[in-house]
Amino acid sequence: MLRTHTCGALNISDLGKEVIISGWVQKSRDLGGMTFIDVRDRYGITQIVFNMEENDTLCKLARTLGREYVVQVAGTVIERSSKNLKIPTGEIEIKVSAIEVLNESKVPPFMIEDETDGGEELRAKYRYLDLRRNVVRKNLELRHRMAQETRKYMDSLNFIEVETPVLIKSTPEGARDFVVPSRMNNGEFYALPQSPQTFKQLLMVSGFDRYFQIVKCFRDEDLRADRQPEFTQIDCEMAFVTQEDILNTFEGLAKHLFKAVKGIDIHEFPRMTYADAMRLYGSDKPDIRFDMKFVELNDVVKGKDFKVFDDAELVVGVCAKGCAEYTRKQLDELIDFVKRPQIGATGLVYARVQADGTLKSSVDKFYDEAALNLWKEKFAAEPGDLILILAGKADKTRKALSELRLEMGSRLGLRAKNVFAPLWVLDFPLLEWDEENNRYHAMHHPFTSPKPEDISMLKTNAGDVRANAYDMVINGTEIGGGSIRIFNKELQSTMFDLLGFSKEEAQKQFGFLMDAFEFGAPPHGGIAFGFDRWCSLFAELDSIRDVIAFPKNNSGRDVMIDSPSTISNEQLKELGIKTL
Amino acid sequence: MLRTHTCGALNISDLGKEVIISGWVQKSRDLGGMTFIDVRDRYGITQIVFNMEENDTLCKLARTLGREYVVQVAGTVIERSSKNLKIPTGEIEIKVSAIEVLNESKVPPFMIEDETDGGEELRAKYRYLDLRRNVVRKNLELRHRMAQETRKYMDSLNFIEVETPVLIKSTPEGARDFVVPSRMNNGEFYALPQSPQTFKQLLMVSGFDRYFQIVKCFRDEDLRADRQPEFTQIDCEMAFVTQEDILNTFEGLAKHLFKAVKGIDIHEFPRMTYADAMRLYGSDKPDIRFDMKFVELNDVVKGKDFKVFDDAELVVGVCAKGCAEYTRKQLDELIDFVKRPQIGATGLVYARVQADGTLKSSVDKFYDEAALNLWKEKFAAEPGDLILILAGKADKTRKALSELRLEMGSRLGLRAKNVFAPLWVLDFPLLEWDEENNRYHAMHHPFTSPKPEDISMLKTNAGDVRANAYDMVINGTEIGGGSIRIFNKELQSTMFDLLGFSKEEAQKQFGFLMDAFEFGAPPHGGIAFGFDRWCSLFAELDSIRDVIAFPKNNSGRDVMIDSPSTISNEQLKELGIKTL
Repeated sequence: MLRTHTCGALNISDLGKEVIISGWVQKSRDLGGMTFIDVRDRYGITQIVFNMEENDTLCKLARTLGREYVVQVAGTVIERSSKNLKIPTGEIEIKVSAIEVLNESKVPPFMIEDETDGGEELRAKYRYLDLRRNVVRKNLELRHRMAQETRKYMDSLNFIEVETPVLIKSTPEGARDFVVPSRMNNGEFYALPQSPQTFKQLLMVSGFDRYFQIVKCFRDEDLRADRQPEFTQIDCEMAFVTQEDILNTFEGLAKHLFKAVKGIDIHEFPRMTYADAMRLYGSDKPDIRFDMKFVELNDVVKGKDFKVFDDAELVVGVCAKGCAEYTRKQLDELIDFVKRPQIGATGLVYARVQADGTLKSSVDKFYDEAALNLWKEKFAAEPGDLILILAGKADKTRKALSELRLEMGSRLGLRAKNVFAPLWVLDFPLLEWDEENNRYHAMHHPFTSPKPEDISMLKTNAGDVRANAYDMVINGTEIGGGSIRIFNKELQSTMFDLLGFSKEEAQKQFGFLMDAFEFGAPPHGGIAFGFDRWCSLFAELDSIRDVIAFPKNNSGRDVMIDSPSTISNEQLKELGIKTL
Repeated sequence: MLRTHTCGALNISDLGKEVIISGWVQKSRDLGGMTFIDVRDRYGITQIVFNMEENDTLCKLARTLGREYVVQVAGTVIERSSKNLKIPTGEIEIKVSAIEVLNESKVPPFMIEDETDGGEELRAKYRYLDLRRNVVRKNLELRHRMAQETRKYMDSLNFIEVETPVLIKSTPEGARDFVVPSRMNNGEFYALPQSPQTFKQLLMVSGFDRYFQIVKCFRDEDLRADRQPEFTQIDCEMAFVTQEDILNTFEGLAKHLFKAVKGIDIHEFPRMTYADAMRLYGSDKPDIRFDMKFVELNDVVKGKDFKVFDDAELVVGVCAKGCAEYTRKQLDELIDFVKRPQIGATGLVYARVQADGTLKSSVDKFYDEAALNLWKEKFAAEPGDLILILAGKADKTRKALSELRLEMGSRLGLRAKNVFAPLWVLDFPLLEWDEENNRYHAMHHPFTSPKPEDISMLKTNAGDVRANAYDMVINGTEIGGGSIRIFNKELQSTMFDLLGFSKEEAQKQFGFLMDAFEFGAPPHGGIAFGFDRWCSLFAELDSIRDVIAFPKNNSGRDVMIDSPSTISNEQLKELGIKTL
């Protein structure tokens, strides 16, 4: 080793030791006859010191070292005269007896500090320098810890990690596949998996009753800030289980990760039906770090000649505790917020509960004190509260109010990143109707089992059929989702019919799975977690970018290696393709 | 859970318990008024029993159950009258009180037994049934254990597992890349990584001084029996280390895996230079489970008018202990063996050491007793030994003799699959000359560092320059290989020159890496292990196929899912390509 200790290892108990450290020059200060240099590695920072009087050659050399030079330093651990108790190595320094410059460095394009001066694009191009920053490295260390602890937990429960193939077959369902032209089979293509779904189900048919995999998946979608073309899942499947077994097993995983990685004890997860989540939070992934549940007002607001409410399918609101004193400006901000195109409300009705308990609303001319008192009761509102109400088509209004609720939660400081509120959302609908294409889509995926008690409705009112499907939600983010699967060829075939697959398409795409179901498929179900998302949540970040070592930008480009890029004509010809 | 116990859990200590098991019908026997069924799951086999007299409905139902039906069985654990002490559950059976058929099964196309009647193609098409076989499942369980133990060891040494990207950039060096057309950047392509080489080096530049990853890699090569287009590596890199540190760290990994997975204590690995390996075994991956070293004979065989030896660049042989009594037929087999085109020798000279110590050779007319005695001395041959000699061009002859040596080792039973003999092969040449294209190739890869003491030869006799490169070899198989890397832009640039890259090509392909080297790259090196190969070695298999859940065939096809396959014209158009 080119060191006896790391830059984070030495402390007051090492005084007098002869040591060698290696690392990067973080900072250098010349104070009279002394030069102090902070040497950094992954483990910390150690100060080294040179004295012009004692060794001017060495000290002069030290003064030539630029930021990010790589050095190997030998010397004696001594006590610092001016201690820095904020870092573990802050009581000591190394009095240098020899130093070797292992490599020089150009001046880096931005500061290698927690608070850097580099913009996003510059840091992306020099990602290898951005990764030197403490805050970025810590995220990847956390990711490693998450993966290790996940595997530890799963292994302890007899789950086997099985690697499923990356070069698979394109399926038309859902998002777009990335494809790979085959040189050995010109004109044919592999696809990269959007998930190992069919393979994990085949493993259940094979009798591997407990499978998991931390696995890269691929989706060729237009990217948003928090989407990446390649992403990582914790993919899991179990046989001979009910939904309850799956919920318990993976609630256990979550609790284990909370404890092992974050040091947090989490109690039993609340469970909420999809119907309740939509009714009470307007979202299938409610943020329950704070309460502020929806209150429906149709029965107390209609028939008072306020046309907006009278015409609305749904009038629904939330009560923001302690916001009665909001200024006109603050209220206008909220009105602007709900009117933004991505929210889409046409207006906002509000009512302040005044100190004396009376209400002052923006629609006082339609509602008298008695009417407003009914509102207050509905919301259990107290003096000082602000009631915020939206109205319109039910689905759209719930969605808009959900956004407003989250906005109010943020304004009220109720969404701290270091507070975690997980829950299960259950009983998702099996299908969703696609108005545009006049057909059903699978809400989860086509292999999801309807609830046994709802199967009879498949032929009559399929849209009402609930699935044995569940999501794990933490802080308003869907961390994982899964379902009990169909394991019967006829029911699977019925599902493909409902989803508008012709027999031929179904056979071409999923024939191998349906064939497999004829050879003794066991009851099974599973779940998949968005690993990047979960890491970013635990790292208390907004985006998944910084828990990924080499992420791509919103155009799917890696600007550091400049990829994608053109390939040669010979290569294209060998692959049997040409560009348009 | 649809069971209280697995099919491997119950034994004599559970007598009297009311239990539920679930699994597959392995075998069914009707004996008079009794029906016995073996129910199988991943964990074992449990016998269940039905009695026609006690419950004829249940017993009649039992007699309708076909092989591979999935059943859930409730009953009481009782002692068997006729015990099978070969299996842990063999002393008990379950007297069935209720049985539910969870799923039926068609008759499987081959027997789900260790020794199956299914041919390779049939088993590939129904891989999900092949995976039900005990012997196949055990391989994947071993693979899981290998991965878990690898991660445990690496984590304990502060290595961080970092996921590097799968969608990267095509490089012209080495084997062919698989490419992925970009929909968002028409005309451009990602490539799938042949290894994360450049990324792991960038991570070293980033200060992640200990990186590893168990990672899928991809090579679009014509496939041999033991190659797959997608394969898995244990990829590792360390900074601030010498070659010695890397050898010790990963010898430690190997010892840990031997102990944890195979229960075998392995002592210090022998080390051998590439030059010695070639001279003594004719191979850079010698199988040292047995000795039978090469003995060079030029100085004792030349000048005796035997033209074959006189004309040969090298005369070299091995001594097969105890084979003097080989029949004419056996010797002819060996001659045929070395004359096979893939071996390419023109003939084989042999000499038997007879009981009285005298030699009887196939070239007695050229060599008298005194001359033959010199041979005997060289080989330290004893009565009963058989000396086998090849002659010709040095490289080709060594290669042929290496094959003959392995063949003799096999014939003598010296290559038992449950015996393991690892070693390090060191000091590989940096470059190899490509006669055809009149240029050098990197023996390992273009980032490998020459030995410091050999650098001066780069401009004069580059072919003699040795690299700080090393392979871990077990039982004649290269399990892993790596090198100390170049970490200096000028030296890297010299290497690209030697390898015939123009400045522009080098910049286009590896500019980001050379740029990174200007910002304080630390000394670093690493190694990558063929994970599939290592698992198959530990599973004592010949091919890597059966340690891969869903392998592809020699045409790169997955015959189960029928991939690769055609994709739609719309999809092609969106991707900006068309097929030729």
